[in-house]
This record gives sequence, C-alpha cells and structure tokens, in this order.
Amino acid sequence: MSLLVPPDDNRPRHVCAHCGIVHYQNPKMVIGSIPVWDLAGDTRVLLCRRAIEPRHGYWTLPAGFMENEETTGEAAARETLEEAGARIELQPLYTLLNVPHVHQVHLFYRARLLDLGFEAGIESLEVKLFAEHEIPWDEIAFPTVSHTLKLFFADLAMHRTGQPFGFHTLDIRRPMRDPRQ
Amino acid sequence: MSLLVPPDDNRPRHVCAHCGIVHYQNPKMVIGSIPVWDLAGDTRVLLCRRAIEPRHGYWTLPAGFMENEETTGEAAARETLEEAGARIELQPLYTLLNVPHVHQVHLFYRARLLDLGFEAGIESLEVKLFAEHEIPWDEIAFPTVSHTLKLFFADLAMHRTGQPFGFHTLDIRRPMRDPRQ
Repeated sequence: MSLLVPPDDNRPRHVCAHCGIVHYQNPKMVIGSIPVWDLAGDTRVLLCRRAIEPRHGYWTLPAGFMENEETTGEAAARETLEEAGARIELQPLYTLLNVPHVHQVHLFYRARLLDLGFEAGIESLEVKLFAEHEIPWDEIAFPTVSHTLKLFFADLAMHRTGQPFGFHTLDIRRPMRDPRQ
Repeated sequence: MSLLVPPDDNRPRHVCAHCGIVHYQNPKMVIGSIPVWDLAGDTRVLLCRRAIEPRHGYWTLPAGFMENEETTGEAAARETLEEAGARIELQPLYTLLNVPHVHQVHLFYRARLLDLGFEAGIESLEVKLFAEHEIPWDEIAFPTVSHTLKLFFADLAMHRTGQPFGFHTLDIRRPMRDPRQ
C-alpha cells in the first residue's frame, strides 16, 4: 500500500501498489440515543458502563458505529438494544458533534424508554438510570456524551417552560484529557 | 479477502486471509450546501451541472464526500468552493437524509453566497443561480438534492411570515428512477 495522489484527485490516498485500487478513508459515524424514563416529571437517563476499551469502566450513552444498509435512526435503536438491552421509541435527532481529530461524527437521538426491562449487553458492565444530580460527570467516557447530556438537561429545564428541545451541532477540536491524570 | 464473522462481532466483515486485518465498511457522509443569493426578497439558489458520473449533465447542489480531519461544516464550505468556485457564509445545518441502499448519509447546510464571483470547478460543466420557478426539477441529479430544494423553498415561504427554517431528517429507501426511462 502506497500513499500517493491518484489522477483526478487532490490529496494523498492509500493505493495498492499491485492492483492500483484506491482505499478511500472517510470519517465514520457513531450513533446513539438518550434513553429517557419519565415518571411524573422525575426524568432519568439510561447510561452504560463500558466493558471494552477505549474508556473501559467509564459511563456512556448507548452508541456505536453505524453499519451499511441501515439509517441513522435504525443505528441508534440497534446500538441501544445491543449495549443496554433497551427498547426505545425514537424521538428527533438531538445532537451532531464533529470530532475531526479522530475522524468521527457523533449523532444522538432523544428517545423514550418503552419499559424498564433493560440489561447490560456484552459491551457493558452495567446499565443504570440516572437523575440529573446523579450523573457521574467525572466518569463520562467521551466529551460528545457529556456535551449531549449537558445540552439535554439544560433544554429539559427550558422544555418545562414550554420551549422545544431543538437540534444542536458542535465541533470538538481536542482530545479529552483524563481529569485524574 | 474473505467474508466472515470476526470474534466478538455479530456480522460478516471483509477479512484479509493472510494477515487477519478486518476491513470495516461503514456508511460515508456526503456534505453540501444550499448557496443562496438574495436581493430584496428575490431569492436564488446556486446549482452545478455535473461534469462527472454518476448523473453526468444533471444539476446538483455542490456536495461531496467528507474527508478525514475536517468537520461537516468545513466539508460543506470546501465542496462549495471546489465544485462551484463559490465563497459562502455557512448557516445552520438544514437536512440530514439517509440513503441506506447506497450506504450514504447526505447533509446540507444553508449558506449565504458572499459574492457573485463563482465559476464551474473541474467536476462541474456550469454553475448557475436559479429562482424557484426556474429550478430544472426533471434534471436534478439526486433525490436528496430535490428533497432538500423542495423543503428549502417551502420553508422559505413560511420564513417570510416569520417562521424559522428548522432542521429536517428524511430516509430515502429506494433508488430514484430516471423519469424519462
């Protein structure tokens, strides 16, 4: 595999030295949900504690790489079922977060938990509902998750006064440092 | 290259029979803009006539594959400059359209043309401003572009009565047939 600029292109690509096939590398989409359980205004969000690297042991919203042949909404529901064993009713797309230094775009949908029969999937150590004051902010796995949760609880407070949740985009330019290092 | 399910995975992947490396294939993002020139309420949109396949000779909004190391907004501005020679002020993200049968997600940003010094890039035959009644609806290259344009002009009419443009998501399940076939 060689790194060179193919004809009719304007940047270096990985090209097979034998067959000439160009292996384009493009950003990947990571898609998840904010699964919400609301009982008479007591709003809780479902988080998963990661059983895999990176960020083993840290908390995240259920999310993962989008697959071919599926839509962004289907990816969100699939990842929520795989990682949290949770069935959801998908609500509108809520955040789109660019993470250019890792070649990723993260999307999170708001979602309504359909029942409390969730359980940790193979990639999760445990799965748990959190009220806003219980969120383990120092143990959130990824900045896209903490930004999405902060936006969600800020909008939730406004929503109670009649405002819509809206849709948010954000660019995250630098890798997160572990605050304990 | 063999198609098999790697350990700890749940679907077939392309795996190199020699070295065992898994070549994951994920959806690609196609990002573009709706470049608008507005003169006292006379609103025109910039379209490019394609000089490349697929859909050579058909009209499109400037758009292309997102690259590593860039954000979705940067991709929209870059493609608009490359294909239409147009400088824009980026406005909020306007549409997200899933096209699962071709493993793509298309995003379009609203945008304000900064000047009229646009010109066809290497992938365009010509670049031209269109008022709504001039849009060549039967010669639009891709359904994601025609859906985005229709949403835009519908929202534009509402916008003149004080409504916001909003953000739209749409799933396009089937390939578009050429209406002339």
